[in-house]
Order: sequence, then structure tokens, then C-alpha cells
Amino acid sequence: MAPVKVFGSAAFTNVARVLVCLEEVGAEYEIVDIDFHVREHKGPEHLARNPFGQVPAFQDGDLMLFQSRAISPYVLRKYKTSADDEAVNLLREGSPEESALVDAWLDVEALRYDPAMNSVFVQHRVVPALGGTPDEEVIGESVEKLREVLDVYEARLAKHRYLAGDFVSLADLSHFPEAHYFMEMPYAAVFDSYPRVRAWLEDIFSRPAVKKVVELMSKDFH
Amino acid sequence: MAPVKVFGSAAFTNVARVLVCLEEVGAEYEIVDIDFHVREHKGPEHLARNPFGQVPAFQDGDLMLFQSRAISPYVLRKYKTSADDEAVNLLREGSPEESALVDAWLDVEALRYDPAMNSVFVQHRVVPALGGTPDEEVIGESVEKLREVLDVYEARLAKHRYLAGDFVSLADLSHFPEAHYFMEMPYAAVFDSYPRVRAWLEDIFSRPAVKKVVELMSKDFH
Repeated sequence: MAPVKVFGSAAFTNVARVLVCLEEVGAEYEIVDIDFHVREHKGPEHLARNPFGQVPAFQDGDLMLFQSRAISPYVLRKYKTSADDEAVNLLREGSPEESALVDAWLDVEALRYDPAMNSVFVQHRVVPALGGTPDEEVIGESVEKLREVLDVYEARLAKHRYLAGDFVSLADLSHFPEAHYFMEMPYAAVFDSYPRVRAWLEDIFSRPAVKKVVELMSKDFH
Repeated sequence: MAPVKVFGSAAFTNVARVLVCLEEVGAEYEIVDIDFHVREHKGPEHLARNPFGQVPAFQDGDLMLFQSRAISPYVLRKYKTSADDEAVNLLREGSPEESALVDAWLDVEALRYDPAMNSVFVQHRVVPALGGTPDEEVIGESVEKLREVLDVYEARLAKHRYLAGDFVSLADLSHFPEAHYFMEMPYAAVFDSYPRVRAWLEDIFSRPAVKKVVELMSKDFH
């Protein structure tokens, strides 16, 4: 079986989300870099893979997919050896209730956590790299939105070990790529008020699959 | 079996998304209004249902859920009579490829289409209702973002009858609540440049389940 292909480098948080799923299930995969400097992402070949001209795109034989939160469940389903295999049971699809809770907290990550984190990253890292000045007001508002999310997480993690319940899931893993960059920024101090969130993140970062992808991210980020 | 409960009125697009799934599968349900005027949504009882103090929340026996794009698949799975029942096969989970494509286009709806549509709605309807003046610059930017999404949809719908393929899915249905309000606004003219998108929306709006929920939305919006 030819290995699946992931288009886009690990430095992109949405690519890292897919890679960690592939690492968790131990799948063979090939990363195909897309050269943003020559606008390869907006070329016809890549637009056929991802109509929005972004990364990741994902290829498994005849199937071409985009959107990291659609690719990730596909990967986890494809390589799941059995419903009882805890090691790769990151969707909990054996239980309608548990899998709905995984969906709910993954949606929170996508719609609340990620936009707040990413907005800070863009202002603090991307804007200066392009010669601009970070908008401190935008950063302040985003950190405030992040706090609202972390308030809810801290309360949730007082009741359960992970977001969707007492089991690790894709909903948890999906948080690490943005956190990886955020923790290197001065704003990381915001997490000091959230000891349970901090411990939960440490738990996620201690997973071998996450360590492997963090390594790839660091290598690619330049 | 006690009917499931949906907390929040049909006028909220995220509530309407859940209701249309219940209508599609012909489930019994009860709508429990949350009184925003007395801040019931931020009271302890509702925060126990939805930790972000928003609607919808959803109760099925002991299970309490939030996030409409997590509740909707749960509803569709619960009442699915068989994998071959086309009438309620809106997730296509019998095929890993098709269900991944449904996930991908649902993600596009959540992350690209909905924020652009909703931003216009907030400026045009909510801001004046609160005594403010719509920010035309924000509206212009949002309409531009919407156009980028519709460009992709128009091309996609040239190849397939629906977003995820030649079958209707949750990814399509999920678009109607925002479209219902948008089509009553002067900005609706933007859709004139997208004849395939227009026809696709008309197809969705012609579904009995959608008609039923549109009726509930119109009754509740005041």
C-alpha cells in the first residue's frame, strides 16, 4: 500500500494536527512541501487538492481531502485496528455519547480556542516578519477571548481528566499545535492562572506522537 | 421514550441547524426557550448545559451536549434506521471517503461561510437594533470573504450536485440558517453572480424539513 501524502509542511498548525494523528496510529506517510514563496499554494495543481489554496491537503489513493479536522478523523478511522484498541481510540465512535462529546470539544477548539491563539500568533510573529508592527489592541482582545475559553477548560478539567471525559481524544490532541507556538511567546503567562489546563497540556505534550511532530515543526519553522 | 430537548429558540441559526436534523429524521423533540432578556443564558442552570452560556444546548436523557455541529451528527446517528436509508443518510458514514468529504465541507461552512455571513447579519440587523450604526467597512470585508467562499462553491457545484458529492448531506443543510436571514438583506444580490449556488440553495430550501424550520424561525424572530 502506497503511503498517504500530506501536502504542506509541519510548521503549519493545521498540518501538524493531521501529522499527529498519523503518528498516533503509526501510519506510513509522506510529506510533500508546498513552496509558498513561489505561490505554489495558489497554482492549479495545488488548487485541485485544496480549493482554498491552503494547507494541508491529503491524498489517499483516489481520495483527495482538505480541512485538517476532516482529514484527522479519516486517518484515525482508517488505521483503527479495533473498537477496543485504546491506543488509537481517539474518536470514541464505539459510544454515540462519547463521540458526540469529542465532536463538541473539537468544535470548541476550532471555533473558539484556535482563532484566539492564532490571532496572537499572527500579530506577534507574522506581522513583524512582514515588516509591520503588531496591533496590541488586537492582541489584548484575543488574549481576553482566550481567557474566556480557558475559564471553561479549567472548570471542565476539574471534573474530567480530558476535555471530552476521562479519556484522551482528538479533541485534546487538536490543541497542541497552536499551544506549541503560544508557549514561546510572552503572552504564555496567561496560562499561569490555569493550573489544570497547564497540567493537561503537559500531559498532551508528553505523548510520543506529539513529541515527534513538535520536532518536525521546529525543524521546519524558519 | 421521552423526547429530546433543544434549549434555545429556532430564531438562532445554531439552533435551527439542530432542528433541521431532528425534522429530517422525524424525531420527537421539545424546544425549551431560554430568556436572554433576563440573562437566563448566563445563569447557573443554563451554564451547566452549555458552559459558554450560549444556545443551543441539547438533552437526551443523561447526555447533555452543546455545539450545533456536534449535536447534529449525534441526532442523525441516533435516528438512522439503516445504513441504506437514503432519507436520513446525511452523514454517509457507510463510506469512509464520503463521510470525510461531508466533514470537510461542514468544516468549510463552520470556518469560512458562517463567520462571513454572520458578520454581515450582526452589522445589518443586530447593531441597529441595539441603537448603533452598522460598520460598512466590516460589511464590505465580510461580503468579500463570502465571495471567496462562493467562488469555490460555484466551481464545486459545477462538478457535483451537492458540496460533498452527488448526494445531499449535513454539509449542505448546515448552510440554510444563515442563508435564510442573508437572503432578506440588500447584500443578497451577491448571489446573483453564482447561479449554481443559487440553485443549490433553492434545492435545500425546498426540503420539507427545512421549510418547517424556516417557519419556526420566522415565528420566533422578533
